[in-house]
Amino acid sequence: MLPPLNLARLRAAYLARELTPVELVERLWDALEAEGHTHGIWITRVPREALLARARALLDHDPAALPLYGVPFAVKDNIDVTGLPTTAACPAFAYQPARHATVVQRLLDAGAILVGKTNLDQFATGLNGTRSPYGVCRNAFDPQWISGGSSSGSAVAVALGLASFALGTDTAGSGRVPAAFNHLVGHKPTRGLIPATGVVPACRTLDCVSIFALTAEDAAQVLAVAAGPDGEDPYARPLAGLGGDFAARPGWRLAVPRDEDLAFFGNADGERLYRQAVEQARALGATCVPFDLRPFLEAARLLYEGPWVAERHAAIRSFFDAHAAEVIEPVRSIIEGARRHSATDAFEAQYRLQALRATCDALWGDVDAMLLPTAARVHRIDAMQADPVRLNSELGHYTNFVNLLDLAATAVPAGLQADGLPFGVTLIAPAHRDAGLLRLAARLHRRLADTMGATGWTLPPQPDEALLATLASGMVQVAVFGAHLSGLPLNGQLLKRGGRLVAAARTAPRYRLYALPDGRRPGLVRVREGGQPIACEVWELPATAFGSFVDLVAAPLAIGKVELDDGRWINGFVCEAAGVEGAQDISACGGWRAWLAARAAAA
Amino acid sequence: MLPPLNLARLRAAYLARELTPVELVERLWDALEAEGHTHGIWITRVPREALLARARALLDHDPAALPLYGVPFAVKDNIDVTGLPTTAACPAFAYQPARHATVVQRLLDAGAILVGKTNLDQFATGLNGTRSPYGVCRNAFDPQWISGGSSSGSAVAVALGLASFALGTDTAGSGRVPAAFNHLVGHKPTRGLIPATGVVPACRTLDCVSIFALTAEDAAQVLAVAAGPDGEDPYARPLAGLGGDFAARPGWRLAVPRDEDLAFFGNADGERLYRQAVEQARALGATCVPFDLRPFLEAARLLYEGPWVAERHAAIRSFFDAHAAEVIEPVRSIIEGARRHSATDAFEAQYRLQALRATCDALWGDVDAMLLPTAARVHRIDAMQADPVRLNSELGHYTNFVNLLDLAATAVPAGLQADGLPFGVTLIAPAHRDAGLLRLAARLHRRLADTMGATGWTLPPQPDEALLATLASGMVQVAVFGAHLSGLPLNGQLLKRGGRLVAAARTAPRYRLYALPDGRRPGLVRVREGGQPIACEVWELPATAFGSFVDLVAAPLAIGKVELDDGRWINGFVCEAAGVEGAQDISACGGWRAWLAARAAAA
Repeated sequence: MLPPLNLARLRAAYLARELTPVELVERLWDALEAEGHTHGIWITRVPREALLARARALLDHDPAALPLYGVPFAVKDNIDVTGLPTTAACPAFAYQPARHATVVQRLLDAGAILVGKTNLDQFATGLNGTRSPYGVCRNAFDPQWISGGSSSGSAVAVALGLASFALGTDTAGSGRVPAAFNHLVGHKPTRGLIPATGVVPACRTLDCVSIFALTAEDAAQVLAVAAGPDGEDPYARPLAGLGGDFAARPGWRLAVPRDEDLAFFGNADGERLYRQAVEQARALGATCVPFDLRPFLEAARLLYEGPWVAERHAAIRSFFDAHAAEVIEPVRSIIEGARRHSATDAFEAQYRLQALRATCDALWGDVDAMLLPTAARVHRIDAMQADPVRLNSELGHYTNFVNLLDLAATAVPAGLQADGLPFGVTLIAPAHRDAGLLRLAARLHRRLADTMGATGWTLPPQPDEALLATLASGMVQVAVFGAHLSGLPLNGQLLKRGGRLVAAARTAPRYRLYALPDGRRPGLVRVREGGQPIACEVWELPATAFGSFVDLVAAPLAIGKVELDDGRWINGFVCEAAGVEGAQDISACGGWRAWLAARAAAA
Repeated sequence: MLPPLNLARLRAAYLARELTPVELVERLWDALEAEGHTHGIWITRVPREALLARARALLDHDPAALPLYGVPFAVKDNIDVTGLPTTAACPAFAYQPARHATVVQRLLDAGAILVGKTNLDQFATGLNGTRSPYGVCRNAFDPQWISGGSSSGSAVAVALGLASFALGTDTAGSGRVPAAFNHLVGHKPTRGLIPATGVVPACRTLDCVSIFALTAEDAAQVLAVAAGPDGEDPYARPLAGLGGDFAARPGWRLAVPRDEDLAFFGNADGERLYRQAVEQARALGATCVPFDLRPFLEAARLLYEGPWVAERHAAIRSFFDAHAAEVIEPVRSIIEGARRHSATDAFEAQYRLQALRATCDALWGDVDAMLLPTAARVHRIDAMQADPVRLNSELGHYTNFVNLLDLAATAVPAGLQADGLPFGVTLIAPAHRDAGLLRLAARLHRRLADTMGATGWTLPPQPDEALLATLASGMVQVAVFGAHLSGLPLNGQLLKRGGRLVAAARTAPRYRLYALPDGRRPGLVRVREGGQPIACEVWELPATAFGSFVDLVAAPLAIGKVELDDGRWINGFVCEAAGVEGAQDISACGGWRAWLAARAAAA
């Protein structure tokens, strides 16, 4: 029997020596063979002997030293793997890559085991999973239903327990829609975070490598391994901090569309599950903020109705212009559509997008994230094939705008419909908030699902914090004791830098507090003896903004490290000794606010 | 007689009550009338009565309260001014704007006096100044020669002393080439720094409002007033820090093309002046670094040979498609060229540019700025008209790539050729280094010219520091005392954050230094009595990177403010009192490095 393949359990099994990669491969092979070709998952599978050789090579390594030691994964077949053809689901287009895509190389270097290359909507053009000459890819819960696409096989492989995680690509929603339809987490990272070197482009300015996983923490670990510029992809972006745990802060805000902006295309049960997800986000502390979805939907329409289809042409221009007949419908017609657009059209559409981006960006000053249905409605394969363009367009209703507007998104399972098929929701936030999104996704997932994919494996009740912590947040915490406290005169210095109150707190009992002679600031001094706890507030702000805050601090105050009563040392205000000579010791009040109150009462 | 119109002198005259705006306008009017139409500067001039009314309105204001109090300026006639038509040098296109362009409004709010709207190459398409139905614009030094363009009239107005500064626009070099040919400073700011709201676009993704000025410090003051998002231009960018004074640091580096990459198109005298400018930069401390100009030139060619011409079509599409016959040649043919390019071409060219950008960006890790000729050669008007496209292309040889690659640039006068015509050089740096560029330009200008424009007015021998300081640098300084000193174990923490050594320094004589018990760090403690100066290094790093540096500091050290021996208080390492209890006082060594040496000698 295969053990559950989520990273925490698999890793625990390896570390406890309950399992070796060779045993894992042997059991996985049986599962792969048992699935056979039922779901149309694979374009190329790695042979048994090659899998075993890879597993045996891992036996020489320390499981603790490799973050993805012995973790089986699948790769969408528009991503290069040496030794296997890259087809993009078009046999006439297939080629033998000279080397691994950057992302594949990084995963292998981290100890992962590649299982195979997965089926997709041809040239990643589609969100449904039926557009492949390698056969329709079928839903992991019921093979009469679509898998979603274009990263169809990658999602179904993970949902059926044939891989711990899988790589997809996501331009319009290809990494999210199949996650929704197969009860998985699908993380569409910030654009450029994972280099696209070795990936067949769809729309090069928008494409993202995406991650299907059984849990959000698994996606975080894979992203931590995969992210960062490779010096080759000119669209790669530096790995800045990926956002604090915004949903752990009191009063965090979640944008939810106004009722009139929501469409479920007849899926009342999906609407019920979406509203339940909103309720559960509220139970996690969200203040839900209704917002106008229309500018986002207008941006979404640009993707297929506007000149961005020309990127799909540019991606395979020489092949397409010579071999259009070898491209299946409706992919061919969609790419042919590029010819209708002039360079002038392309620039005009980019101007329109830039304007919409400015409009849409205003929302992010008010909320931390957005919660939407991932796709409103899943379809039977026959229905999909009967109306392939219109229904595909419906599938992208809530996903198409995300890359155009430079947002990050995590699709989260949102329970099963009455018909037994999964429904999903997506958390969306601006670029570089991936870490915060995945932390929230990990918590929301626990409230909406008990099992992972279609495996029947129990979802671990608590997110694995160690895995989540592999993504650096880029935030810093600072303990403030005086005029920077909430509501006091200098608090604005924190607020205008994007600072958020994390918690009221106290220091370890090793400090004394003085009122400085200017009467406006306290000075915190660490002492060997006679110390006591001092009240403070812990604030969090982006590391990029922290420097200009420190720059404002005037002597004798300084930013050092302060010990809290829970034993943590964090940034905080300390005072030079010379500054408190002759100053009034106010430690007895326990804190600056209490001293202010006492002084006011005395006056 | 008009006083010299550079901002420092004009402001001094107003503050000393030697001059009023009304007197200025009266004298300026005489100068404007005396010039007449000799140079083809103006499309619309503000009438005398309106000028006087504006000047009188300023009499109610405190000159000290308005940064551009009573400063006369001109505006290129593709920028909206209420009450005057915007023509873009095409009478059939002209319209009456409903309100001022954002930049004009800001300048007027700062007290400036608008003199008129200036002539340009039609639709800002050209770099030479001959492409206008309002007449050829003529060089301020000799009317037989071209003024440069497209911001022709703006440059000539300033060069002839008819305005203190003028607004141009710059897509391909229109704010720099006319500066070179008229002996002016021409600053092409970081893209998006000055909002383009109310500006007729040329290439919306590239256009910049630019500034012609008599000195670099004047350009800095105008930029400080004009910059910052207006909430309307979606391409506007937030006003981040604009770079430190990189050329004030020891060992600053200047990229200079390899000899084989330089072309002067037969202008040997220009080559001499360019090489002289390089020598003078060296005399200012530059380490000159030869580099490969070819990828920059390849990017330059994309601008006119590639699909970016479609932006010029998009900018005026409905007008052009209906009234192409009203557009003069060769502007019409250039814009017609857009029709040759498909949307696929547009995206492919954008990919190529992105790849070139990645290649070119590598240079900026090695150098602070680049020094190029602004334009290789000025032409007689008849020669220009005889070969208008080829010679125009030559004019943009060193300017076309700058906006495509998201760079900032300052054109600086580089002396007069033997024929009496000016030659210019341009300093180029990545976006958001405007402040550093302008400071260097101010110093280089003093080494290459004695007078301003064609006015004969003496260039003030020293840059006006107060005007230069109006642009915030976004850098912070920090004094380090121990393991962060150059060459010591933690120095890399500064280097990897873009830190640069500013100077070796000493504190005020009010500190003592201790060797902390860990043996690896010193602790600096301020004392009331018995203090002495302690050796340190002052480092500068971007404020955005400073926070993550502070975050690394471990107790008992902290970042506070330290008093230097020149009386300045800057960020620096201080130590909590509890941390030095029982620690060894090493103040007698005068600093950490000396103590390390003494310890090594003793061992």
